[in-house]
Amino acid sequence: MTREKVVLAYSGGLDTSVIVKWLQEKYGYDIVTLTANVGQGDGELTGLKEKAIKTGACEAFVEDLREELVRDYIFPMVRSGAIYEGKYLLGTAIARPLIGKKLVEIAEKVGAKAIAHGATGKGNDQVRFEFAIKALNPYMKIIAPWREWNLRSRTDCMEYASKHGIPISATAEEPYSIDRNIWHISFEGGILEDPAVEPDKDMFRLTCDPVDAPDEPEELTIGFEQGIPVSVNGVKLTPVELIDKLNQIAGRNGVGRVDIVENRLLGMKSRGIYETPGGSVIAYAHRELEQYTMDRETYHFKENMALKYAELVYYGLWFTPLREALDGFISKTQELVNGTITLRLYKGNVCVVGRESENTLYHHGMVTFEADDLFEQKDAQGFINLYGLPLKIKGIMDRKRKKELQEVRTN
Amino acid sequence: MTREKVVLAYSGGLDTSVIVKWLQEKYGYDIVTLTANVGQGDGELTGLKEKAIKTGACEAFVEDLREELVRDYIFPMVRSGAIYEGKYLLGTAIARPLIGKKLVEIAEKVGAKAIAHGATGKGNDQVRFEFAIKALNPYMKIIAPWREWNLRSRTDCMEYASKHGIPISATAEEPYSIDRNIWHISFEGGILEDPAVEPDKDMFRLTCDPVDAPDEPEELTIGFEQGIPVSVNGVKLTPVELIDKLNQIAGRNGVGRVDIVENRLLGMKSRGIYETPGGSVIAYAHRELEQYTMDRETYHFKENMALKYAELVYYGLWFTPLREALDGFISKTQELVNGTITLRLYKGNVCVVGRESENTLYHHGMVTFEADDLFEQKDAQGFINLYGLPLKIKGIMDRKRKKELQEVRTN
Amino acid sequence: MTREKVVLAYSGGLDTSVIVKWLQEKYGYDIVTLTANVGQGDGELTGLKEKAIKTGACEAFVEDLREELVRDYIFPMVRSGAIYEGKYLLGTAIARPLIGKKLVEIAEKVGAKAIAHGATGKGNDQVRFEFAIKALNPYMKIIAPWREWNLRSRTDCMEYASKHGIPISATAEEPYSIDRNIWHISFEGGILEDPAVEPDKDMFRLTCDPVDAPDEPEELTIGFEQGIPVSVNGVKLTPVELIDKLNQIAGRNGVGRVDIVENRLLGMKSRGIYETPGGSVIAYAHRELEQYTMDRETYHFKENMALKYAELVYYGLWFTPLREALDGFISKTQELVNGTITLRLYKGNVCVVGRESENTLYHHGMVTFEADDLFEQKDAQGFINLYGLPLKIKGIMDRKRKKELQEVRTN
Amino acid sequence: MTREKVVLAYSGGLDTSVIVKWLQEKYGYDIVTLTANVGQGDGELTGLKEKAIKTGACEAFVEDLREELVRDYIFPMVRSGAIYEGKYLLGTAIARPLIGKKLVEIAEKVGAKAIAHGATGKGNDQVRFEFAIKALNPYMKIIAPWREWNLRSRTDCMEYASKHGIPISATAEEPYSIDRNIWHISFEGGILEDPAVEPDKDMFRLTCDPVDAPDEPEELTIGFEQGIPVSVNGVKLTPVELIDKLNQIAGRNGVGRVDIVENRLLGMKSRGIYETPGGSVIAYAHRELEQYTMDRETYHFKENMALKYAELVYYGLWFTPLREALDGFISKTQELVNGTITLRLYKGNVCVVGRESENTLYHHGMVTFEADDLFEQKDAQGFINLYGLPLKIKGIMDRKRKKELQEVRTN
Repeated sequence: MTREKVVLAYSGGLDTSVIVKWLQEKYGYDIVTLTANVGQGDGELTGLKEKAIKTGACEAFVEDLREELVRDYIFPMVRSGAIYEGKYLLGTAIARPLIGKKLVEIAEKVGAKAIAHGATGKGNDQVRFEFAIKALNPYMKIIAPWREWNLRSRTDCMEYASKHGIPISATAEEPYSIDRNIWHISFEGGILEDPAVEPDKDMFRLTCDPVDAPDEPEELTIGFEQGIPVSVNGVKLTPVELIDKLNQIAGRNGVGRVDIVENRLLGMKSRGIYETPGGSVIAYAHRELEQYTMDRETYHFKENMALKYAELVYYGLWFTPLREALDGFISKTQELVNGTITLRLYKGNVCVVGRESENTLYHHGMVTFEADDLFEQKDAQGFINLYGLPLKIKGIMDRKRKKELQEVRTN
Repeated sequence: MTREKVVLAYSGGLDTSVIVKWLQEKYGYDIVTLTANVGQGDGELTGLKEKAIKTGACEAFVEDLREELVRDYIFPMVRSGAIYEGKYLLGTAIARPLIGKKLVEIAEKVGAKAIAHGATGKGNDQVRFEFAIKALNPYMKIIAPWREWNLRSRTDCMEYASKHGIPISATAEEPYSIDRNIWHISFEGGILEDPAVEPDKDMFRLTCDPVDAPDEPEELTIGFEQGIPVSVNGVKLTPVELIDKLNQIAGRNGVGRVDIVENRLLGMKSRGIYETPGGSVIAYAHRELEQYTMDRETYHFKENMALKYAELVYYGLWFTPLREALDGFISKTQELVNGTITLRLYKGNVCVVGRESENTLYHHGMVTFEADDLFEQKDAQGFINLYGLPLKIKGIMDRKRKKELQEVRTN
Repeated sequence: MTREKVVLAYSGGLDTSVIVKWLQEKYGYDIVTLTANVGQGDGELTGLKEKAIKTGACEAFVEDLREELVRDYIFPMVRSGAIYEGKYLLGTAIARPLIGKKLVEIAEKVGAKAIAHGATGKGNDQVRFEFAIKALNPYMKIIAPWREWNLRSRTDCMEYASKHGIPISATAEEPYSIDRNIWHISFEGGILEDPAVEPDKDMFRLTCDPVDAPDEPEELTIGFEQGIPVSVNGVKLTPVELIDKLNQIAGRNGVGRVDIVENRLLGMKSRGIYETPGGSVIAYAHRELEQYTMDRETYHFKENMALKYAELVYYGLWFTPLREALDGFISKTQELVNGTITLRLYKGNVCVVGRESENTLYHHGMVTFEADDLFEQKDAQGFINLYGLPLKIKGIMDRKRKKELQEVRTN
Repeated sequence: MTREKVVLAYSGGLDTSVIVKWLQEKYGYDIVTLTANVGQGDGELTGLKEKAIKTGACEAFVEDLREELVRDYIFPMVRSGAIYEGKYLLGTAIARPLIGKKLVEIAEKVGAKAIAHGATGKGNDQVRFEFAIKALNPYMKIIAPWREWNLRSRTDCMEYASKHGIPISATAEEPYSIDRNIWHISFEGGILEDPAVEPDKDMFRLTCDPVDAPDEPEELTIGFEQGIPVSVNGVKLTPVELIDKLNQIAGRNGVGRVDIVENRLLGMKSRGIYETPGGSVIAYAHRELEQYTMDRETYHFKENMALKYAELVYYGLWFTPLREALDGFISKTQELVNGTITLRLYKGNVCVVGRESENTLYHHGMVTFEADDLFEQKDAQGFINLYGLPLKIKGIMDRKRKKELQEVRTN
């Protein structure tokens, strides 16, 4: 008799190794692991298949999702302008729906009835995984061991592992939890929970400290087509190459660090430290290009949309009709967001030093017409009189009312 | 027989000097000048009264509006979080309504029937002045010489001046136009109209170039009460002192420069360079403190409000019921925005290194309860099941539909 | 030794009678009941104190909350313009926070450690009660028997009641559940769950069928002060009198029925039938008066706010900083919403037939100025040229681009 | 030598007849007239070509735009849910951009350099025409005689006509101005300017007075595909047929009258009376179907969008990137808005009595799953605990603060 299967999102770390065994014991499942390569670094992936099998999995998948992640998730988000609470570029949040989607695909492929993940019960990621799974296969059972078992700490897991002969790397525990993909690294929890604690200099991996960055500014040019970054310094790059390239350039100039106290979906505040070097310059350049090519009313309305888009990504609501409809809006707005933006990076700073676009609505240098042909200065008077008419009417009414009040008082 | 009076917003520069004479000639008015001290620098104000009289004014007022500007205009705007198009801290825009208000007050005091200003016919400032005047005295006649006369350039004005014996300073023409007040300096027009032109290093007056800033970071602490900055490094300061102090500190660290292509109210894009050193750190610190003390739903909604508030300020719609109503919202949200934020400034960078507030909603260190008392991890499952219920229902319906479509196709 | 106390929201119906006993058995609590008079009808309240004691309560409160409900909850909501999903006037939702507040007050007064309510586990009301309690006393234990016990139906409750000697009225079961207060009656569940089922004519209690309403239209005039209704047909009334009066008038004319499929907070759709006769005419008249007295920009922005306000009320988020801040906005907007609106009611219809306000911004009949003084028709040209400038620039750029594309193609 | 040409939007009435002559005299143009058939009634169109030529036009076009108007303008607007200021279904506003577009097309076809229209200088329509023209051909000269000439009234026009031998129909002047198309009739101005004046019963043309409507309710069923109405009572109809049909049915039941004081684009309020019988039932049914098929978050967000969409249509900003982007959003949301809605009409009332859709998200009768499978009641507790967590944290902080304040006071 064949046993039922579960697909586990597997990183190869302590937690998910323990989960392999725990799922077997508790549920009697056959375990299929999926390790998603979202750019967490080659070192994180070598030997993972073997390790999964050795730990007890019956089948182990490692899938390179980097291209899909950038093309179908990160770039649409960039086009939307989404930044959560003014600072967070949504690096962890944007990868979760894709991983959830792959979990469902693998589960359907191998005939699994359940999906398990190692996200804890207080964080955002459990929500993001599970929302993706619910949307894409509402009949799939979801198992979140951290909400079920009574292991409460790393020590508990270590004990469980040694008791069950689970092979564990001898790496020391990090004093915070880390999530890394091609777009960013996040650090949170542990010693970082105290917002007064500044992280050690050597915590950072993608960016150097601004103080240690080169003393000479570095310029770089990003080219966009329909709001999507396609080239760096004139060289066309694939999505993955482009982000890797920009991570290097921005990272060595100390650009892209964020320290934030943010509002989680689960109703509490948490503190995070993020490195998003490439993402920071892309977001900056994209905004500049929009300002150069987009009309005011669309731009202002889109600023509102970006806030909603950021919420949806942060809350894990990617596979929803609303996100899709927002993309319907955004796609339309990006048709003419074409051109190049040149930035200067210097010790953590970004500033714009060049804008080029055939689709700019900025009038300077438009040879086909002179500024003076656009309108005459006396038109301004009509505009002011009419746009300001409500103020004038209000002013008249206010005066009338004050006068009446005065008369009432004098009588 | 007494002649009618006009109050002129008078800077003492070439334009407004010419206007004094032109108003006399064209309209036969007696001219009363008002020079508003909004922090444009002492050098700009010395001798202005005498100069106005010498040029032909019958009466000349110089009013120190700095305290009122900061307290009643800039700080409410800071509390709103308003930043126009993601970059512009609204330095010029925020001062105009107050100047408009003083013009009306002086006009009513001296019994003038008209107000004149020297703003040109393509810019935002004419609108901002006139909206304020219309709102506060809808019966006041408004004269905007630049929209009426046929002088078209500085040279025209120079000729007019020499022909009419108007005393003109021998200062060379700036290659761009400048507006300065306590909150910022703006540069635009002239050679800056080409967005590919980078300004000269020596154009800047409030900030040093990040490259020239000190090699050591500098930390500073800003204290807030109800969202209003009240102290720097533990020292209570008046509003004007506080901004002056922060301008110094931030300025010497190269913080607060902006280069933007922005959308004017009059329907065209323009390019501006701004220096807002103190404002930049205040805005940054205020946001940090809000994130530390404000609940998520209020914060997210307020992000939308800030966009509207910025539009209203930029468009000159200060004296409007909507701006007042927005302030009704914002005031309420600021009641608990109390505490201090410590920032590190370094060669143009700002980052947060400390947050202190008795009103924080961040749980760490709340002695009265443990994080685990707040909710149990298993609650998360209920939350996810219900918050994600629409995704699941949608997923079920999608599957049902796809199946039906498939059946239709097979038949 | 004294036993711990629980305060129960007690209606005297089957459910809450059973809960009295169940709480004693399960938790060993002393039971204190609170029956909130929110206008559910005198018949519902007589003898309730005695009944509660007889059923086992040690103390029984009946509190008349009608005045407070209307003044502090319903009227602020009316001023906001909140209507949920375009149709629902939030009758049930608006009463819950107040009941929650009184539960906390009584609990604190009698020294109870817990609060219990009879709302079921799939509805909105459990959420609304509990959010109010959490906000006002976060340390209070909350008990929701329907989520805990294994009674699953009315029959289960009947059995439990007879087993425990709980006195039960002999009334037949309604084929749907009902909630009534001074503002409305709702019907939902049971046979109404099928949205194709039309309710019986005799289900309705506050409104007659439009077909049976008088053949003659009836006019009525509602007076407002600062957006709050204060008089009917010229007679000043207390808040409670006013709503009772309008319920009569509108009800006899068949006004105020709604049939809706709405989105619950808990992620599913449900179907409700509502009667809100007085509320419907108040909401209609209030909007008319706002349109007559409020400037466009404030009105349009407030339309957006009303959507948020409706969400907050529906979701039970009354005691939140965001709702309070929205009220800060709304209060400001209502200062000049003074005057009277005359409506004609006829067989379910409402239409406006008169508007009077000293604060109208409608120009007709303003003796102090002529329409022609406000602006000259030629101003319109300037306005159109400038307000339409972005369209023109866009048009020029589009043409330029098309021409270039064409040239590319021909070459 | 050929003369330059102007294309005139020509109705055949007094104004536009006078304009034909005036344009010849003033500008020496050859006049080409365009009469757009937007459903103003056959009587308005017969003999117009001949009349135009007789009045002096060199060429006269009459174009049937009804199909295009409904399909490409009205139906997209219906899908958006746009209703201006809660009442106005935008009947006049939605036709203007299309007429503007045809004017440009004809002008380009006949090689005209200018376009003229008969809209007055205080209304919205001049703006709507001219914005369309500017967007579609920014180089086209626009002539608005009412803003130029010194004719000030109908009498002035009559005199001008008789002086110039312009053939005028002997019809008496209407005491208000009328605009009619397939979607609606509007009445405004003249005696209607006094908002206290109720229109005569015989003013109305598309709807009967509710009092005179049949004593028996009438039911009708509207079918939608992707948010577009396609059938009535089960019969598929073309867009034009469908609206004509619904105008009849709704009109004879007294449905679709509106009396509004609205905010014009030009900054003043005006009073309008509208008849939109078919439109009213379409809008009602469309909303019902959306509520039946659309998830909550999309629906609520779309409610905000609808407000913006209504503004854009009202302000004449149809041919703008923002309107197109909004349609990108809306199109996506309508994909599953399929099904039928049955309404009951009775003496001015509309109510829903049936909803059918294969895409409903309403769970009742979904055979594939039971409500109880969707979630367990105990999940609700987790949901409430976490969704309500911010309220609890806030409550704890409030209590802590109050206690501290108290302690401060006692010391």
